[in-house]
Amino acid sequence: MTASAAGRPRLRDLGVAVGRFPVGEHNAITDVDGVRVNHVTLVEGSGKLVPGMGPVRTGVTAVMPAHGDPFLNRVYAASYVLNGAGEVTGLNQIEEWGLCETPILLCSTLCVGRVADATVAWLSQRHPKIGQEYDVVIPVVAECDDSYLNDAVGRHVTPADVAEALDGVRSGPVEEGCVGAGTGMQTFHFAGGIGTSSRKVELAGVVYTVGSLVLSNFGNRNLLRMDGVPIGRLIAERFAHVPMRGPAGSIIVLVATDVPMTHRQLSRLSRRAALAIGRTGGYAAHNSGEIILSWSTANRIPRLSDHGRHTVELILDTEIDPLYEATVDTVEEAILNALCAGEDMVGHSGHRAPALPVELVAELLQRHRIAHVVDPPPSMNKPFQPR
Amino acid sequence: MTASAAGRPRLRDLGVAVGRFPVGEHNAITDVDGVRVNHVTLVEGSGKLVPGMGPVRTGVTAVMPAHGDPFLNRVYAASYVLNGAGEVTGLNQIEEWGLCETPILLCSTLCVGRVADATVAWLSQRHPKIGQEYDVVIPVVAECDDSYLNDAVGRHVTPADVAEALDGVRSGPVEEGCVGAGTGMQTFHFAGGIGTSSRKVELAGVVYTVGSLVLSNFGNRNLLRMDGVPIGRLIAERFAHVPMRGPAGSIIVLVATDVPMTHRQLSRLSRRAALAIGRTGGYAAHNSGEIILSWSTANRIPRLSDHGRHTVELILDTEIDPLYEATVDTVEEAILNALCAGEDMVGHSGHRAPALPVELVAELLQRHRIAHVVDPPPSMNKPFQPR
Amino acid sequence: MTASAAGRPRLRDLGVAVGRFPVGEHNAITDVDGVRVNHVTLVEGSGKLVPGMGPVRTGVTAVMPAHGDPFLNRVYAASYVLNGAGEVTGLNQIEEWGLCETPILLCSTLCVGRVADATVAWLSQRHPKIGQEYDVVIPVVAECDDSYLNDAVGRHVTPADVAEALDGVRSGPVEEGCVGAGTGMQTFHFAGGIGTSSRKVELAGVVYTVGSLVLSNFGNRNLLRMDGVPIGRLIAERFAHVPMRGPAGSIIVLVATDVPMTHRQLSRLSRRAALAIGRTGGYAAHNSGEIILSWSTANRIPRLSDHGRHTVELILDTEIDPLYEATVDTVEEAILNALCAGEDMVGHSGHRAPALPVELVAELLQRHRIAHVVDPPPSMNKPFQPR
Amino acid sequence: MTASAAGRPRLRDLGVAVGRFPVGEHNAITDVDGVRVNHVTLVEGSGKLVPGMGPVRTGVTAVMPAHGDPFLNRVYAASYVLNGAGEVTGLNQIEEWGLCETPILLCSTLCVGRVADATVAWLSQRHPKIGQEYDVVIPVVAECDDSYLNDAVGRHVTPADVAEALDGVRSGPVEEGCVGAGTGMQTFHFAGGIGTSSRKVELAGVVYTVGSLVLSNFGNRNLLRMDGVPIGRLIAERFAHVPMRGPAGSIIVLVATDVPMTHRQLSRLSRRAALAIGRTGGYAAHNSGEIILSWSTANRIPRLSDHGRHTVELILDTEIDPLYEATVDTVEEAILNALCAGEDMVGHSGHRAPALPVELVAELLQRHRIAHVVDPPPSMNKPFQPR
Repeated sequence: MTASAAGRPRLRDLGVAVGRFPVGEHNAITDVDGVRVNHVTLVEGSGKLVPGMGPVRTGVTAVMPAHGDPFLNRVYAASYVLNGAGEVTGLNQIEEWGLCETPILLCSTLCVGRVADATVAWLSQRHPKIGQEYDVVIPVVAECDDSYLNDAVGRHVTPADVAEALDGVRSGPVEEGCVGAGTGMQTFHFAGGIGTSSRKVELAGVVYTVGSLVLSNFGNRNLLRMDGVPIGRLIAERFAHVPMRGPAGSIIVLVATDVPMTHRQLSRLSRRAALAIGRTGGYAAHNSGEIILSWSTANRIPRLSDHGRHTVELILDTEIDPLYEATVDTVEEAILNALCAGEDMVGHSGHRAPALPVELVAELLQRHRIAHVVDPPPSMNKPFQPR
Repeated sequence: MTASAAGRPRLRDLGVAVGRFPVGEHNAITDVDGVRVNHVTLVEGSGKLVPGMGPVRTGVTAVMPAHGDPFLNRVYAASYVLNGAGEVTGLNQIEEWGLCETPILLCSTLCVGRVADATVAWLSQRHPKIGQEYDVVIPVVAECDDSYLNDAVGRHVTPADVAEALDGVRSGPVEEGCVGAGTGMQTFHFAGGIGTSSRKVELAGVVYTVGSLVLSNFGNRNLLRMDGVPIGRLIAERFAHVPMRGPAGSIIVLVATDVPMTHRQLSRLSRRAALAIGRTGGYAAHNSGEIILSWSTANRIPRLSDHGRHTVELILDTEIDPLYEATVDTVEEAILNALCAGEDMVGHSGHRAPALPVELVAELLQRHRIAHVVDPPPSMNKPFQPR
Repeated sequence: MTASAAGRPRLRDLGVAVGRFPVGEHNAITDVDGVRVNHVTLVEGSGKLVPGMGPVRTGVTAVMPAHGDPFLNRVYAASYVLNGAGEVTGLNQIEEWGLCETPILLCSTLCVGRVADATVAWLSQRHPKIGQEYDVVIPVVAECDDSYLNDAVGRHVTPADVAEALDGVRSGPVEEGCVGAGTGMQTFHFAGGIGTSSRKVELAGVVYTVGSLVLSNFGNRNLLRMDGVPIGRLIAERFAHVPMRGPAGSIIVLVATDVPMTHRQLSRLSRRAALAIGRTGGYAAHNSGEIILSWSTANRIPRLSDHGRHTVELILDTEIDPLYEATVDTVEEAILNALCAGEDMVGHSGHRAPALPVELVAELLQRHRIAHVVDPPPSMNKPFQPR
Repeated sequence: MTASAAGRPRLRDLGVAVGRFPVGEHNAITDVDGVRVNHVTLVEGSGKLVPGMGPVRTGVTAVMPAHGDPFLNRVYAASYVLNGAGEVTGLNQIEEWGLCETPILLCSTLCVGRVADATVAWLSQRHPKIGQEYDVVIPVVAECDDSYLNDAVGRHVTPADVAEALDGVRSGPVEEGCVGAGTGMQTFHFAGGIGTSSRKVELAGVVYTVGSLVLSNFGNRNLLRMDGVPIGRLIAERFAHVPMRGPAGSIIVLVATDVPMTHRQLSRLSRRAALAIGRTGGYAAHNSGEIILSWSTANRIPRLSDHGRHTVELILDTEIDPLYEATVDTVEEAILNALCAGEDMVGHSGHRAPALPVELVAELLQRHRIAHVVDPPPSMNKPFQPR
């Protein structure tokens, strides 16, 4: 499985490198050691929507937040709700305990209940003490709405699909675009829902990794900006005849890092991640659930402890600015990667999400990059002379 | 069906009237015009826990927040999370849009996914435009953990149970105690999970109604206070040999009113409702999800509108104090009603929640009430003389 | 200086011990090692209000949150706003950084600006790098409104008063009632604004201390409950002829502990502290700012660090319940101590706050305590027999 | 007084129009009918910093949120704290009551206390019932830190300056750059702290106005983006020899509109406004307080009312997306206007904030704009052909 579906380029293949930090090995959330991802993609049927029957353009994505089992060794986590017109189950508990103790599932909005139920089943099998000594568990399931392309009411994700997604999580390259939960999603009205990116960043003498993965389903075609260039406006005419869905939307942003941080620090990080949505041209439309979930793999909090205390090393807030900067970069690039990877997707009833025309976009981006380099204005590198 | 299970008394039958306001016709959340409730109670089997098989001590409770269909005519709503170690699906959207647009379901923690899924099915059947013109829906499902008595892992609530609960919602008296979602719940380690109460309160010349319904599953037996009297401490010895479950807990509080209020005002109301938990002897234990959801039936917000604007009459905040006071009273009384109504409940593996000994409690409450009335201290009614 | 003004009793002298935990040496916030308090009390003039001239019934209270200088060695801190109709400057920063880095000042609402300004001056003198290497500082100043008794518009607290309060902070007994910022305050319409209390509590094998100090200015006379007993209702008639101020109110609650906790944990603690307000009969009236600020003295976060990281030992959330319970108890007792300590206070224009009639109250409390002990109901200590 | 200091251009004079909506008459927050602004600018002395003496590079800016007196006729308001390392007094009350009832003052961090005190004095003179029938008032004062250029510890703003700022508020053009509270501020390490912008936007058939005003003091020079173009990176070399202050930051964003909105809706608007900070290249540095305050002039809430209720017309959330989009545009443009308007500012101790080199920037922006227009790629306007 390649990192990008069907040989399509990633953003960097178009010559764009967002920000100033180096990327991790796979430029993916899995560059954070221990983070694992898997997609189950469901594409079946075509033609008019028959609710409950199809066509099917959906899937499920599973993310294991860290090495081993998060139920026994929890990770510090936190969230930020930029726009709450969306659902992430388990968010109350993440905010209250500052911990994530389950895998994270992504899916279609109307499938949240059934994916949550399947995750409870999967966890209960692995942890027979659930419902007995370990009380209970509340899984983390996040969603966007794929009903423009998919028979959403059909809720076509099965418990077996969820188990397959969970059982197959792995490190290494992450497939992007119209895969897993992102199968029927659109980014700025182009096909593609899953994107990822990572950065290496040095804080207080140690090199850490931060990676993002988005389930992206937001944005207005005409407002798309790629690394600042108003691509959406430039290519609008070319797509003027392709109908755009109405008010729907949403984006789920997952941010993982090995920087040792508490809930409060991860909450701050989550708020910063939202800024990337603005950079790409989003404004968090009324109907667009935009929710960020961040976690740190550095300190693990055991479910059971003999000691009643734990000792953690934490980064000081005063050292953290490069991580903020790099995180915004990863989210911006993850969104744009989702966009680059999506292939034309035809859904029910003739609804269509076109692929981003990557060759044209590459040419436009290149023209902007060279605008100032060739024959620069004479004063550009002349030192500033105060009056 | 009587308002109190099996002929057990309600708190007022013990001679206690919390606060100074009159109650509504049924002293129930259904006294708020349009609010409807129904329980489906599941009790099957006995003996040792066989996960997935039983014994079953659970159920589901459906609450319709207002007249008609909340999906088409939404109500203003808001929440407060006193302790987020619990789940209410749809809460992000309630906070973001300030609206509740679905019925509210209560159930066992591990059933949340499947009850949410069944509610999506029920709503999709009634609203065929879901997944098409109306985009999607996120149902509101709240939980407490009944695994001490119930085979929670078995997730014994079926889609048919959910549909039955929803189809049967009705106004009038509300059954309390070990019914519906409250079947396997405990309040201060006594049997009983569902309680309700209401008040009439005059604001700016108009008499309104406020009602609460709790799914109560919290509290430490020894700390129970009833109208201020330390009943838990007084009767502790009598129950010393009955094992208490460990760290579990939780309470979901629903508050409905016909006072015309916005999201912000309902958010304030929700924070006040939490104070009642303190009055009964709760302190929001680490593991106890304590979440309040409030709504107003007064202004309905249509799903679709030709006008793009709506005009609402709102109570001024400066008039609202009596409602705050009355709301705390209803929540306190609803919790105590849950406690009074619960009959002895034997769950799996010999786990047991005893009924509150209501005759003894009535006698103790009575002794406290008369302590100051008979032979009052000479100075009690002597006017204060400033020095 | 004695712990209680003018020889008046504290709550425990009336025979009431709130909760089940032992108190610290002084039953005061200063029992938390390093916490220091000082009051400057301003009482001058009498008669009709002449805005800007008097009469003066106000003051300022300074609290040093820990040993040494919090500006150089910050403490973890967090807050909870039960009702935001009040002001605590610096709260944004406490919530963002999870730290308190200044002393905490309490005063009259209209004095907040000038007390904040005086605190900036006091801090700048001690830390010449402020405004240079250390950038700037935002002091923490909290308020209640004493305008019913005091010439609030006159803003009679001077920079010298603030400096005197800060310079004189000390451990040991804390004066309560109508002193410092509490001079012109009222609790349930009785005189007295400052109260304090503490508890010893064992978590995971270590005995810690938690202490509260309140600036209390809230409550409706008729609703007062003392340890559950409806004292307000019982003695209402005696005070029926004493006018009560209108809609005013507010309470600031400070909670200090040596339990090693982060911001998130202190945020949870702050929410619990609010429950005590409900126990005493408060319902957080519209106009009553009710704000809790908590901190831990256990881990100190240096302003400057060579390392960029710090290592902290933290209590696990699963061990924390006794602290929650004890904290609610301290806040309840601190409020009631403020009430017990206040002496009759006559303010401007004949406005008056009477002292609580402590002898009568003691007798009423005693009657309730013995109600169940003498000649208990036969079934009270008979073991529960399941059916 | 011209809208831009000393004849410097505004962003639009450089050929850039952010977004797709038309601007108001003055492209200023004062285009929202009733909003009035005034600056008092204090520049005195030069040379080495002598704390308490100078040099002075500071000021105060007063904003009257609506026609008439906000104390008697309050406006709906709400806030969002992107990064709480900053202070806005009165924010608790704005969030609790959903109202702004005072003018808004902007100033240097260390002046907040004294500006708040002066505002209390100014308000008390106008409203003699304050401290009597009207209880008290908590003014809204927001800050950024100008200590890199200004003798901040000197707190050079006097009560007379505050009164002058308040007395002189007016509609019409708003001076930008190094004026009022923005005198000693820097935006992306260039001189200039005050900027403003407005848009006309049609919602549900009515044309409304939204305007922003920023006190901008944030950003890293190299990261500056203007309408997406990485100006900071392009001109970095030219300023490489100009030292940059250390721990940057802060920005206060004020957003006014005549769209009829509640607190909840304004809270959503505030969160969107923050996205503009990301667009310009900000990432909300640890030390940078980034706070947004929004209000609507459409419905006025009287301080006193005979009726106890009020009737308001509100825009439906479903109509609001264009306002979100336009608001982000105004904030982006306001920040860039602050940058364009600032003239070289030399502060204490040789600290310096250079003016943005607007001619060079104009040329760079122009090159980017034409990159795609001249000789466009052949496929750019060719209609998309699905496969």
